[in-house]
Amino acid sequence: MTDCKYDVLGLGNAIVDVIAQADDDFLQREGLGKGSMALVDEARSAKLYGAMGSSIIISGGSAANTIVGVASFGGKSAFIGKVKSDDAGLAFTHDIRAVGVHFATTPAVTGPATARCLVMVTPDGERTMNTFVGACQNLTVDDVDKSLVEASAIVYLEGYLWDPPHAKEAFVKAALIAHAAGRKVALTLSDSFCVDRYRGEFLELIRNKTVDIVFANQHELKSLYQTADFDTAVAALREEDILGVVTKSAEGSLVVTRGATQAVGASPIEKLVDTTGAGDLFAAGFLFGYSRNLEHAECARLGALAAAEIIQHYGARPETGLLQLARDNGLI
Amino acid sequence: MTDCKYDVLGLGNAIVDVIAQADDDFLQREGLGKGSMALVDEARSAKLYGAMGSSIIISGGSAANTIVGVASFGGKSAFIGKVKSDDAGLAFTHDIRAVGVHFATTPAVTGPATARCLVMVTPDGERTMNTFVGACQNLTVDDVDKSLVEASAIVYLEGYLWDPPHAKEAFVKAALIAHAAGRKVALTLSDSFCVDRYRGEFLELIRNKTVDIVFANQHELKSLYQTADFDTAVAALREEDILGVVTKSAEGSLVVTRGATQAVGASPIEKLVDTTGAGDLFAAGFLFGYSRNLEHAECARLGALAAAEIIQHYGARPETGLLQLARDNGLI
Repeated sequence: MTDCKYDVLGLGNAIVDVIAQADDDFLQREGLGKGSMALVDEARSAKLYGAMGSSIIISGGSAANTIVGVASFGGKSAFIGKVKSDDAGLAFTHDIRAVGVHFATTPAVTGPATARCLVMVTPDGERTMNTFVGACQNLTVDDVDKSLVEASAIVYLEGYLWDPPHAKEAFVKAALIAHAAGRKVALTLSDSFCVDRYRGEFLELIRNKTVDIVFANQHELKSLYQTADFDTAVAALREEDILGVVTKSAEGSLVVTRGATQAVGASPIEKLVDTTGAGDLFAAGFLFGYSRNLEHAECARLGALAAAEIIQHYGARPETGLLQLARDNGLI
Repeated sequence: MTDCKYDVLGLGNAIVDVIAQADDDFLQREGLGKGSMALVDEARSAKLYGAMGSSIIISGGSAANTIVGVASFGGKSAFIGKVKSDDAGLAFTHDIRAVGVHFATTPAVTGPATARCLVMVTPDGERTMNTFVGACQNLTVDDVDKSLVEASAIVYLEGYLWDPPHAKEAFVKAALIAHAAGRKVALTLSDSFCVDRYRGEFLELIRNKTVDIVFANQHELKSLYQTADFDTAVAALREEDILGVVTKSAEGSLVVTRGATQAVGASPIEKLVDTTGAGDLFAAGFLFGYSRNLEHAECARLGALAAAEIIQHYGARPETGLLQLARDNGLI
């Protein structure tokens, strides 16, 4: 898969994260479901920001985090997503380009501000997110550069793209172009509530072979198959006959195919600080390994390593070069 | 000193830090003096930002960091500094108020943007800073609220205030009001190059008793007395007959009075990440202890504890509540 100009192209919401510590009382007082991602409008976002503690601002966005992770492993990567030409949009653009990611989506000059995600991190390291999708509402099929998709070995799409009005059309267009060019298409289910909102469509994407690889955590997988029993959900995923990658937090991950289910352990950590981006960076490691034609279990080990790095500090962008980290751990 | 409404009032440049990792080659290529703070104009700031790596944005400003640290110890604190009413200014205002600091300086609505400091952190944890002072240029004597100064047990002033054109007048006004009301005035020398720029004026502030307490690190103290020999500089400081507090990085600190020089060790750390704010947070701990009438050595121990917290993560605002940390370490 190395004859392509890019190893992985991500398509997702371009978001800046505003991260603050919060306690459980705060979540309760503000009516926030712990561990979830809720959509909010600009007014609610501003009100919640006013109530939040002192914060740090770091570029985010689920697929964008993954793409930055791929670049940190030394992979060639690109991103499509919509910011506005405001301060946050400039920061997002700077940060993703600074790590060598190709990012050339035209920013919006009018309309809502660059998307921001208010991330509240509780003392247990869990993150609770409230997202104002802002300028992401302006992502359309016109932003999907055909030649860029064709030049990418894997196209990685986030389920969150179903939230803005037109981004799902961009998603489908990118997937069709990729398959026509013989490329692979991967999907992350993003969030269990997101699965709740678009369950039928996500199942359709899997069953009509729009996607070849699906990433999910336990909650998302159970939501997808509307079961409280994880094993039942895994069994259902096996029946789909695609490559399924299921993360289980501290319990590691499962690589699920029709033929087999392989379990891979999590990487050890010293101290859990902030789980934001754990799934995104797991996907980064997995996809990087996949682009290098590594065994699935090896891909999952790279994913676990990247996830372990990201949860030991605030924010969902790596603070340590993942290529060196992988070498130091004897994984590549 | 607890009959005042505020324990410590800070007056300083209101700055947002943009922090990125960088290697020594980068500093050399950009002609940056490692460990220093250089002033840059908006164009140079933008150019350097473009060359920097992926960054995180955290409220900063030397005296502002100190004041936030005092609040984190449970002290009552206030801040005077000038932002513009732009995104960065709103973030600065949010962050300092979110930790309970009184901050009511009127933001500028026209003129240059909120000040930003580009902080490059090398693998050894050292930080190199380039500051565009922006809206801080608009801080004047009119921003010094007489009743606020009178209501504060200690007024803490940063040497960096000598850089914008009119802030030094605000500095002197605040000091005079404070002394007339029987309050204490503290000064940090800020940076050895800052001392180089304003040596005569800083010595004058010390010798004409405009300030009662002076904070300096080794480099700043040697610069103040234009000597390469630290002991000579300390001896000169003793002659000034004020309370001198000299930080020596990993070697701890000295409390210098005419009568005695007391050495206090540094607090142990697990891993040095980013030295940004070490001096600011040392001052926070010291001043908090001083406001509680603790012995000088105890004040220095609180300073060392706060400095140790801040250098183990990126940014100069505490990630851990300092009051609890001090209790956990048996210091209060």
